[in-house]
Formats: sequence, structure tokens, C-alpha cells
Amino acid sequence: MSEQVKYLLQENEMPTAWYNILNDFETPLPPVIHPGTGQPIGPQDLAPLFPMQLIMQEVGVGPYATSFVDIPEEVWEAYKLWRPTPLIRARRLEKALDTPAHIFFKYEGVSPSGSHKPNTAVPQAYYNKQEGTKRITTETGAGQWGSALSFACQLYDIECKVYMVAISFRQKPYRRFLMETYGSSVVSSPSMDTNTGRKFLAQDPDHTGSLGLAISEAVEDAAGREDTKYSLGSVLNHVLMHQTIIGEEALKQMEMAGEYPDIVVGCAGGGSNFAGIALPFIRAKMKGEKNTRIIAAEPTAAPSLTKGVYTYDFGDTGQIIPLVKMYTLGSSFIPAPIHAGGLRYHGMAPIVCKLYNEGLIEAVAVPQNAVFESNVLFAREEGILPAPEPGHAIRVVIQEALKAKEAGEKKTILFNLCGHGHFDLAGYEQYLKGGLEDYEYPREQVEMAISMLPKVAI
Amino acid sequence: MSEQVKYLLQENEMPTAWYNILNDFETPLPPVIHPGTGQPIGPQDLAPLFPMQLIMQEVGVGPYATSFVDIPEEVWEAYKLWRPTPLIRARRLEKALDTPAHIFFKYEGVSPSGSHKPNTAVPQAYYNKQEGTKRITTETGAGQWGSALSFACQLYDIECKVYMVAISFRQKPYRRFLMETYGSSVVSSPSMDTNTGRKFLAQDPDHTGSLGLAISEAVEDAAGREDTKYSLGSVLNHVLMHQTIIGEEALKQMEMAGEYPDIVVGCAGGGSNFAGIALPFIRAKMKGEKNTRIIAAEPTAAPSLTKGVYTYDFGDTGQIIPLVKMYTLGSSFIPAPIHAGGLRYHGMAPIVCKLYNEGLIEAVAVPQNAVFESNVLFAREEGILPAPEPGHAIRVVIQEALKAKEAGEKKTILFNLCGHGHFDLAGYEQYLKGGLEDYEYPREQVEMAISMLPKVAI
Repeated sequence: MSEQVKYLLQENEMPTAWYNILNDFETPLPPVIHPGTGQPIGPQDLAPLFPMQLIMQEVGVGPYATSFVDIPEEVWEAYKLWRPTPLIRARRLEKALDTPAHIFFKYEGVSPSGSHKPNTAVPQAYYNKQEGTKRITTETGAGQWGSALSFACQLYDIECKVYMVAISFRQKPYRRFLMETYGSSVVSSPSMDTNTGRKFLAQDPDHTGSLGLAISEAVEDAAGREDTKYSLGSVLNHVLMHQTIIGEEALKQMEMAGEYPDIVVGCAGGGSNFAGIALPFIRAKMKGEKNTRIIAAEPTAAPSLTKGVYTYDFGDTGQIIPLVKMYTLGSSFIPAPIHAGGLRYHGMAPIVCKLYNEGLIEAVAVPQNAVFESNVLFAREEGILPAPEPGHAIRVVIQEALKAKEAGEKKTILFNLCGHGHFDLAGYEQYLKGGLEDYEYPREQVEMAISMLPKVAI
Repeated sequence: MSEQVKYLLQENEMPTAWYNILNDFETPLPPVIHPGTGQPIGPQDLAPLFPMQLIMQEVGVGPYATSFVDIPEEVWEAYKLWRPTPLIRARRLEKALDTPAHIFFKYEGVSPSGSHKPNTAVPQAYYNKQEGTKRITTETGAGQWGSALSFACQLYDIECKVYMVAISFRQKPYRRFLMETYGSSVVSSPSMDTNTGRKFLAQDPDHTGSLGLAISEAVEDAAGREDTKYSLGSVLNHVLMHQTIIGEEALKQMEMAGEYPDIVVGCAGGGSNFAGIALPFIRAKMKGEKNTRIIAAEPTAAPSLTKGVYTYDFGDTGQIIPLVKMYTLGSSFIPAPIHAGGLRYHGMAPIVCKLYNEGLIEAVAVPQNAVFESNVLFAREEGILPAPEPGHAIRVVIQEALKAKEAGEKKTILFNLCGHGHFDLAGYEQYLKGGLEDYEYPREQVEMAISMLPKVAI
């Protein structure tokens, strides 16, 4: 009689390797370009910012020129503090929607900082420690990444400085306190601590900040100090690779459930949570073994995939870091202050962009009120209160489940619930009072922002 | 090489019965006394407030005159939304303390509302639904109970009204937003919605409130409406019984770990979290099979066990509900505004008091700064940020682990980490800034408060 809800792996069943999709691409990723020379950059250009092991992972060379990269034993041991995470079937949500679809979700909110971010924070801190880094700088939007890196740095006794997007610094102090409890130092970005920050503050003392701007500050800080490296919580290839632990676990757990997803959904800001759940399922799709639909759910306020242009752009607003080819809204674009701070980014991970460009994945943009509407329904049925970011995925899942109902088809849908919303309740309160704004970002504005990019020889 | 950290039960291994310690007591609990008549009350006296199944559980009669009470299938199914919860060995904390002790904790923070409270909220809502209740009132301190009951009422489509202790209503709005997201209506207590509330507001418009006072309001509301029952999140026998799912799971998981605890620790405010972890281990102790030390950790600001008097008192500040024999600081006592709002209660569960009176359990009072110091250490080693309430248990665990180190003894210690602290970060921020106050409550004040109790014939 009893219907299984949770599919749990014991810790000795946790995957021992990350999936490195770079090794399985038929054509390589477009090169990363040095803004000064217009030439592809080499590992040495990145050495001031990252430890060499991460740089080698970034380009997939040396021991990393392989599809499966062994997780270092010490990282695997640290993962056990919260992993493997549960795979849960949302049976009550299915009933509420009266859909024949089976809805599964991977729940990353059980991690110490409440999101998927520690999956890459821990190995990044570990490799830095191995190479003698004493201090790490980073940026954070809503604070999910900053608190994850703060936790990871604490594990390896590394000093951590976080540039936190101003609007979140003001609206979400609890995440800041969490970072401070883990021992980090946190400043509002733009800050007076960097040239970039001072420049933007001079233009607007009440600047709300953005991920792109905070990245500029953290990079500038790290580049200026011998003992300091920089750490990025999304976008980069090695970050996406670390996150594949999510999808690799999910593959095993879906097998426990005796199903394989027809549709895989993740929210996408920088792309790491989406890639974490999706890449291991794209593996079989690239081989032609499966025809899974893979959907990235992004906010209408920062619709890089659905409205952006696939071109070379800076990853940061200050335009001091190398150029990558990606779907971008223009690095000068400051997204509207939506509650899903983790999705307020002008670009998208190059790996995700390549997959989108090649038609291996789809993308859907979701407005803010629809996100909260879906989250409230989800919370009332399943108990778990989702963060606004995964609410984008939930919205798409609900749409697909309702389509399945209309078509009378049993579909198996999997999504990543990448974090809980216990830090995001101010947004819920505003939504319940009816006060959220929806933001659109029209293509004309994108094209104007792109046209304003500095000319670089590529 | 790899050392096991987590001990996970699959959901089909979840215990199917609660432990009813009433049935194993050699002498019965002292009777509950009607404040008007001075006579023991009967089930019919409680009928306006509770559904009959819960009343029968409260007194352990009918189908409940047994040591193991079957969990209704529908409740067991709902438990699966988050249970079984993990048992985790705090190996990094052990290393940081350089102790030979083995420290295990049960982690209840993975529940939808982030604490152990849904363990009883769900069955209470279920039994109410079975008997046709349309609306439930309750009180909440820090909001852990209120959000758990809000979630549970939502599952069974019951309206829920929460009287929230004023100081938490002001200091911890996020928990309130969570209750509202689950569909509840929340007011600050004392409120203008009841006679009791109006009386206390007239005396002091800025009244900080207390659990005892909020109980009075919720009871008055329920007693006055036909369609409404009342629900209490702690203290009562049936509540403690529902929480034993924690300890029953822990028994199985300790067996997986191949150990049995020498010491079991839980924080104690009303007593339900403590009882949840402790009672199943007291079973073997009462039978003389084990000699486990069982320790209740309470705040120095509300030290019912260590400084209270074992006597008949009201469970509420408004003195409208029946009298129970308990260790009490006097029902007129308003505890200092510590961050561990869930422990701000003048009394203690009668079952816990009887065990303490008979020497089966010990108690230790812990001041607020020591709690946060322990929690910060715990968070930095284990990642999980504990709520202030379980921080009292963590403090005692650390003390016992250090004693074991001094004595060179390998002790196995188990405690209940009953909730995460993601809603309590304002307290962490104040602690890190050095600004917390420690509160003591001297015995003379207790005796004065007790002497002021209305005379009742017992």
C-alpha cells in the first residue's frame, strides 16, 4: 500500500567521480579571449586568480582530460557532512495537479548553507589549500554562494572576503550574518575597497549592485594580493563539473525508483545548478541513447538564453576579466532587483550556452509572480519552502505536468530544488500582500547593450 | 579508510509505533486538577479543547493503554515527507575537542519547518481532521511550533490561528511569514483578540509576551468557538509521545553504528524535544537494562528543573487552564527575552518532571553566551548552524566530551539537534558583536512567584 517518496543513497554509495562534459564535446568550447591582446588566454594568464589544479580542470587538460574526474578523498569525506542528498517524489503535488506525470526532485537544501553551492565551494577551498592559498575573495548575490564558500574556507582554515551585491546586503542581512558566523568578512558591493567599486559608487552612491559588478571587485582584490586567490560560484567549467555530483546521484536514485526522466529542469542564472542536474543526463542524450528534454528556467528579468545574443562578452560589469562566448544581455546590464538574487546575471555559463546553441537544451523565461505562485503551491503540498531561484524550475515543471495531463501522457519529470527559502521570506511576504513586480527585458535593449560593448579583436 | 558519518534509515525502516511511557510507569502521573473544583479533571473537561483521540492518548486509556502506540497509516505516510531523519556522527567536532568521546546527533532540522515540531503537529492535525475540527488555535514562541502546525493544518485543510509571543513577532518576522505562506493567520500576543490579551495589553502596551500568556489566549479563543480546537506544541503527554519517533529512530541508527549511548542530551523548554530523544532510552534504564545518563539542558533564564519548585501550577500565565504538578518558576513569571524563544516557559512537561523527581534524569542550566559560543564552534566544524535552543544541548555535550577527555574515557554521547538556526541569525550577529546578555533567575524569586499563586484545594 505504502508509496515510496524518498530515494536515499547511503554515503558509501555516493559517486566517486565528477562528470567532465568537456571531454565528450565533439567540438571544443570557443576559446577564452584576453581583452588586451584579443588572443586566446593560457593557463598562466589565470594563475594570479586560481590554483593550477582548478585551471587545469577549467580547460580539461592533464589528469582532467577524461570524462570522469575522481573526487579527491578529502573532498569526498567533506561531502559526507551533508551528501548524498535525497531524491524525493512530489506525490502530493502530483495529486494537487491531478496529473499523470511523475515529478521527482533532488533536494539540495539539506546542505549546511541551505543550497547546492557547497558542492563546488568545498573542492575549490580544498585545491586552494593544497596550493598554499591563505585568503580567498568572492562575490555573492542573494548570499547562497558566499555562505557556502565561507563554510568551505572555514573547513580548510582559509580567510574569506565576500563582496555582496548591495541590494541583497540591505534586504537579506541574515545570509550576511551566516557568512560572518562562518568567520568571513563581508562588504556591500559596490564598495570603497576597490577601484571598480569606488568608480560605480561615485556615479551612484545608492547603487543596487549586480553579480557582474561584485565579480569585478573580488577579482581586482585577488589580483592585487600575492596571498589571495579568487573563487567563482558559477559560470566556469570547473564549477559546473563539481556540481555534477547532483546529477550523478540522481541517475542512481532514478534507477532505484525504476524510472528515467523524460524531462529534466533546472533554474539557470550563471548555470551551475542547472548544469549540476542536467549534464549527467545530457551524456546519454549526446550519445543518442536517450531523448530527454532538458530545460533551463531563467527569469524574465535576466533572460540571457531566451533574449540574449551569443557573442563574446565580459563576465563582469567592470570589464576587467577575460571575454567568453556566451548568451549575454551585455555586461553593462544591471538586472532588475528580483528576489531570486542568484539569477541576476547578464551572462550564462559557456558550457550551457554551447548546449543551447546546439539545440541540446531548451530554455524558458519565467516572471517573478509566477515563481512565487508556484512556490507557495509547492510549499503547501510538499512542506519544503523553495528559494525563489528553484521556483523558476518549479514553474516550468508545473507547466509540463499540466501539459502531460492535457495530453493524457505519463511523463517522468526531474528537477533540482537547489535551496530552501528560509532566507527569502521577505519575498514571500511581499508576494502574499500582492506587491511583487514582474520585469521584462526586451530584445532591443539587449541589442543596444551589446552594441555598447568595447570593440575587441577576436 | 573512510569513516562513516551518517546513519540513514530508508523510509520503510521508519518505526511504526510511538513509545507511550505512561504505560511503563510504576506509579501514575499526579492527576491534572480543575482550578475551580480542586478535583481531578476527566476527559469530558478537556473535550472543548482537544479531539477525543488525543485526550485518550493524554491519559493513556482505551487503545492507548499500551507501551507502543501504532502510528496511523496516514500520519506515517505524511512523516515520509521528511522522515526518517539522519543520525550524524560529529567527527570534526570530536577532533576539534580532541576528545575520545564519540558524539552522535539526530538532526531534525531537515523537516519542512526546520525543527522537530512537525512530528506532533501532523498527528494532531490528523486526529482533529478525523473528528471534524475546522479551525485550530495555538501559541508559538520563536515560531518553530507555529510554522510546524501551519504546515500540518495545510496538509489537512484546517484553518489555523497562531498567537505569537510579542517579542518574537517583532524580532523574528521570517517565521511569521513562513506561517502565513502555509496559510495561517498570525497575531502578536498579547493581542486585542482575547480577554486575556486585552487585560495584559492594558497593563503594558509594549508587553513582550510569553509562551504562558500566548497559551491563555489560544485556549480562550478555542474554548469560545464550536468549530475550533486548541493545539499545544509541547508539555502534554500525547505531544511527548508523538516526539518519541526521534528516539525510536535513533535506537535503530545507534545499532547501525554499533554503539549505545552512555549519555543522552536534549534541550528542555516545555520538554517535548528532550522527551522525544530521551524516552526511548529511558525505557531500558527503567527496566534496569542500561545505566544511561539522561541530561536535560535548560536556559539559566528559565531554569524550571534546576531552580523551580515541584508543585501544582497553571500551565498558562492567564491561569485559565487546569493545574498540573510540575517543576515551575511560577505561572506569573515572564522569562527574560533570550534568543532561544522556544525555551522561554515557566514550567516543564509533567512526564519530564516526574522522571527528574525520581532521579532518572539530570538537568543542567546554561547561560545564553555559552550557548552561542558552542553553536559557533559547532557550525564552523560541522557546517550545520544550530538554533539557539539545541545550543543548550550542544553546550552540555561539549562539557561532557571534555570531561571524557580529562578522564581518558571513551564515552558515547547522543543529542538531539532539534532545529537549524537559519531563522536565528540576528542572535548570532549580536553574539559575534559581543552584545548578548546572560540572565540568571534566583531561587528566592521563584519562591516569591510560587507564593503568589492563587490558593487551590488539591
